[in-house]
Amino acid sequence: MARWQPGSAERLRNAALELFETRGFDGVTVAEIAAAAGLTERTFFRYFADKREVLFTDQARFEQFFLDGLAGDSDASTELELVGSTDGVMKLVFAALEGAAMLFPEERRNWSAMRQRVINAHPGLQERELIKLSTLAETMADVLRQRGVDTVTATLAAESGVTVFRAAFAIWIAAEEPRGFSEVQHSVFQQLRTLIAAG
Amino acid sequence: MARWQPGSAERLRNAALELFETRGFDGVTVAEIAAAAGLTERTFFRYFADKREVLFTDQARFEQFFLDGLAGDSDASTELELVGSTDGVMKLVFAALEGAAMLFPEERRNWSAMRQRVINAHPGLQERELIKLSTLAETMADVLRQRGVDTVTATLAAESGVTVFRAAFAIWIAAEEPRGFSEVQHSVFQQLRTLIAAG
Repeated sequence: MARWQPGSAERLRNAALELFETRGFDGVTVAEIAAAAGLTERTFFRYFADKREVLFTDQARFEQFFLDGLAGDSDASTELELVGSTDGVMKLVFAALEGAAMLFPEERRNWSAMRQRVINAHPGLQERELIKLSTLAETMADVLRQRGVDTVTATLAAESGVTVFRAAFAIWIAAEEPRGFSEVQHSVFQQLRTLIAAG
Repeated sequence: MARWQPGSAERLRNAALELFETRGFDGVTVAEIAAAAGLTERTFFRYFADKREVLFTDQARFEQFFLDGLAGDSDASTELELVGSTDGVMKLVFAALEGAAMLFPEERRNWSAMRQRVINAHPGLQERELIKLSTLAETMADVLRQRGVDTVTATLAAESGVTVFRAAFAIWIAAEEPRGFSEVQHSVFQQLRTLIAAG
């Protein structure tokens, strides 16, 4: 029986990341990535517009995981309507973060850690990552506003959600962290709550 | 008696901002700014490295207001040593925000509102502003860590501080907001506390 072969996109992604980590993002060409994956440049451009797109999932797809989480939390939505515009808002935000946890299953951890090392070594990529997370916060705030949350509360809640997500991500990709993404994120959220309450 | 004349830097800053607002940041040259201020290009470059620097205070100077606030809060520092590494951390962060309020006296409000409109109309400037605030959060987290706060708590506290600062700034520059910066910031901080506690 033939052994299962990863698809072209995945082979390109893995080859690119290994090259980026060894030689730095700027030191690698698309031709080299394609060659390392045993594919042509033309195939590369069928999947990615450029080298950077290997590292950055489509923003809409990335955000969709958060929005699905938010939409799926029917308890929180009900509660929000029942009890007003502040209680229940962070519960909604946390539901969004839970949705995002689906992006980071165990088998993705190594890839995510490598990707982050490549990004941390390159100011341009760090800026791109910053913009990605800032855009996410704006999208989440928009959704909350559409659900009737006032502007300031929506902004504070969405930004706090992204703060928790970022901190959880950094912990999850650290060497020897045994917990899964969702568990880490839950614990960081509790830590934020304790911190802000303590004043 | 001669009427007081604003200094060259201030004249250049005001002339630049008016031109940016009318014609957009990209539609204005340094020569035009200098001419509008009744000064030479050479004088412009004595004060600013480029056009963008008119809008962005030196990062170190900007951060110093936060760090001074943090350093000046001797009550909070004492409390931090006495009660451990979580209680009192947000008090320290709030002291930093109080220090930053010195950057925004009443006479600065119009200038700040105009500057923000120019930035909001230009993606490149928005990115620059994002990086400025992200760098600020990293600096504040570093200072907290140096004071013995654990890494995750320091990050959460610093990011939350910047969230409050940004939200307060947006409210303060809105038309017809009567309160001063410090009062707005205090109220936003309380709002965050209520929000996070409500869950």
